[in-house]
Amino acid sequence: MTKILVTGFNPFNHEKINPAIEAVKLLPDEIAGCEIIKLQLPTSYQKSEKKLQAAVEREEPDFVLSVGQAGGRACLTPELVAINYDDCPVADNDGEKREGQAIDPEGPAAYFTQLPVKEMVKAIKAAGIPAEVSTTAGCFVCNHVMYYAQSLRKEHPGMQAGFIHIPFLPEQVVKRPNQPSMALETIVTGLTAAIAAFFPDGD
Amino acid sequence: MTKILVTGFNPFNHEKINPAIEAVKLLPDEIAGCEIIKLQLPTSYQKSEKKLQAAVEREEPDFVLSVGQAGGRACLTPELVAINYDDCPVADNDGEKREGQAIDPEGPAAYFTQLPVKEMVKAIKAAGIPAEVSTTAGCFVCNHVMYYAQSLRKEHPGMQAGFIHIPFLPEQVVKRPNQPSMALETIVTGLTAAIAAFFPDGD
Amino acid sequence: MTKILVTGFNPFNHEKINPAIEAVKLLPDEIAGCEIIKLQLPTSYQKSEKKLQAAVEREEPDFVLSVGQAGGRACLTPELVAINYDDCPVADNDGEKREGQAIDPEGPAAYFTQLPVKEMVKAIKAAGIPAEVSTTAGCFVCNHVMYYAQSLRKEHPGMQAGFIHIPFLPEQVVKRPNQPSMALETIVTGLTAAIAAFFPDGD
Amino acid sequence: MTKILVTGFNPFNHEKINPAIEAVKLLPDEIAGCEIIKLQLPTSYQKSEKKLQAAVEREEPDFVLSVGQAGGRACLTPELVAINYDDCPVADNDGEKREGQAIDPEGPAAYFTQLPVKEMVKAIKAAGIPAEVSTTAGCFVCNHVMYYAQSLRKEHPGMQAGFIHIPFLPEQVVKRPNQPSMALETIVTGLTAAIAAFFPDGD
Repeated sequence: MTKILVTGFNPFNHEKINPAIEAVKLLPDEIAGCEIIKLQLPTSYQKSEKKLQAAVEREEPDFVLSVGQAGGRACLTPELVAINYDDCPVADNDGEKREGQAIDPEGPAAYFTQLPVKEMVKAIKAAGIPAEVSTTAGCFVCNHVMYYAQSLRKEHPGMQAGFIHIPFLPEQVVKRPNQPSMALETIVTGLTAAIAAFFPDGD
Repeated sequence: MTKILVTGFNPFNHEKINPAIEAVKLLPDEIAGCEIIKLQLPTSYQKSEKKLQAAVEREEPDFVLSVGQAGGRACLTPELVAINYDDCPVADNDGEKREGQAIDPEGPAAYFTQLPVKEMVKAIKAAGIPAEVSTTAGCFVCNHVMYYAQSLRKEHPGMQAGFIHIPFLPEQVVKRPNQPSMALETIVTGLTAAIAAFFPDGD
Repeated sequence: MTKILVTGFNPFNHEKINPAIEAVKLLPDEIAGCEIIKLQLPTSYQKSEKKLQAAVEREEPDFVLSVGQAGGRACLTPELVAINYDDCPVADNDGEKREGQAIDPEGPAAYFTQLPVKEMVKAIKAAGIPAEVSTTAGCFVCNHVMYYAQSLRKEHPGMQAGFIHIPFLPEQVVKRPNQPSMALETIVTGLTAAIAAFFPDGD
Repeated sequence: MTKILVTGFNPFNHEKINPAIEAVKLLPDEIAGCEIIKLQLPTSYQKSEKKLQAAVEREEPDFVLSVGQAGGRACLTPELVAINYDDCPVADNDGEKREGQAIDPEGPAAYFTQLPVKEMVKAIKAAGIPAEVSTTAGCFVCNHVMYYAQSLRKEHPGMQAGFIHIPFLPEQVVKRPNQPSMALETIVTGLTAAIAAFFPDGD
């Protein structure tokens, strides 16, 4: 049975909730005939690496889809590319701040995802939910995890990996005037459609 | 039993759906011990007047809350004030275009709502849904109906009336990049909270 | 000679600069054959009234155009209407906070401007500068002054009055990510075009 | 004398003007003691390559800064990275549409700029103009040229190259409601400050 590892981050930067892990928890255990394995990742440059690596070694998934919050975006955005660069004024959950350093000094400048981002966008839209391909996953832990998952492909070359950003939840924007949001149920439906789109012909 | 007339518009301007009437349809039949009477209004300057007037005369409601779509807004926005002015480059559903004319040449420049808009915003936010008071209902049929409902108070002075704007639904922004939206369920929950806030002490 | 009184506010809310008064200062002394009289107003509910009243009595202007900053707007916005309502979480420059009170308990709910806002927008656009009619001047000192100027027409019935909002300056958004701005020179050109549009045929 | 090649695109997609080439034309001929060589590039995947290559071979510049329009952005955005990917629903000026193909099938996934983007942002802000580092140059001819300039470093390893995106001009947003813009003079001042920031100590 095809295995899909879906990761979601825990809350960060004084938030009490992270829609990423909340949405991942609500995914069905099976999508398109594949087993969905759920993993919470800490919003930490270093610990997220360790936890992801352990899960990949343990589960040997066929696919990894990481989910993260992109506050301010109005739709679901599958990410095209991860860059070799950590840079954020906000500290991660371990208090580590990185301001302009390579994720892997020996690694390539970027990795493209193996996931079919255009098909994912089409499938999400077909479910009545707004989506578009994004060409930047930022420079914080989201991009870091997306880049790191790619680097694991050296040891797991058959594995396909990628990332999708999701908006704030409505409750998160109660104190953020004019910020777009998306209901958790809508996000879950969109993620499910995106995952089903990994398999163009349903195989 | 206190009667609350809640109106929602039908689709306009080439849309297939209007979240306003869809949300109104899903409201419970009773909120805070009050009877909820639902009314669909045509997106028409003239016909909306006739239909609203007939319903007010028939039902003699204690409250009128009209609901309309404000594409581009990210939260629920109870309206403070309606102005005596019709002006929109888009024709209404009868093909009537109005470009800068008074709704009632004998009427006041504006009417303030009798509804407790600040309390409504607080109640919606307490339900985990973003909201803010709006000081403009625009110049199309939404503002027109809000103004007209006020003018009916001459004959129905005990009636309190007002308006709330709601965002696009997710399915409506699939073809509108970067536009915020809100799930129908979220809107319904927010409207229910707003209506319950008409009664500060639950009476 | 036709007299046009143009007012601009001084800085408020911890800003060091207010584009309104800066732009007013840079207006020519004559536009379309009319004398331009410039007046700085304090961002104060009470003092702005007194200073505006004194200037109107002293100058007996044919027109009053008040200029204010609307942070977050991307274009010049002539205002259609002022409402009888003060409400802002920010205190004015005298430390006075007003949260939902009438400007004039005896006054009408709103006043429409006498200025030709649609022609002003057309003229600004013809000068290559973005503009649109606004239907809300907010509930802070800008709307207050716009409303108060209208109330002065009881004593000065021939006077026409109105308001135009302008964006932040570039230097003001250096610390406000993603906020639109407009160069001072652009604003001045736009205001000049707007004022010239008071006279459809140049008379 | 240090040579800086600054490129700007000609108009595309039915626009009559491109702020990029207009701003480049207005740059001084010398900045921070360096010679500024100006080059217009066609908005064409293929022709921009040829013209840029010819200029680099002819001039042997120490720096290349390419300037492009990013409609919708509110500030100047030096670009961190170019990706190996052409993808845009809009055709270039030769009518060529590219939908998801590598710029160089043998090339790396991305190139980071050699330009000091953080220092450029600081210098632009110090000039009173909003700026921020961008992590995506898109997938159209802008990103293409940024990527291609990097590939020329194989033959010109001492050359440093990069890209900066600029907003619409005010005249371009007259028909685009709610879009931010920036005056040409402001853009020119910002570009000049950005170029001066190539040299941390003014040398």
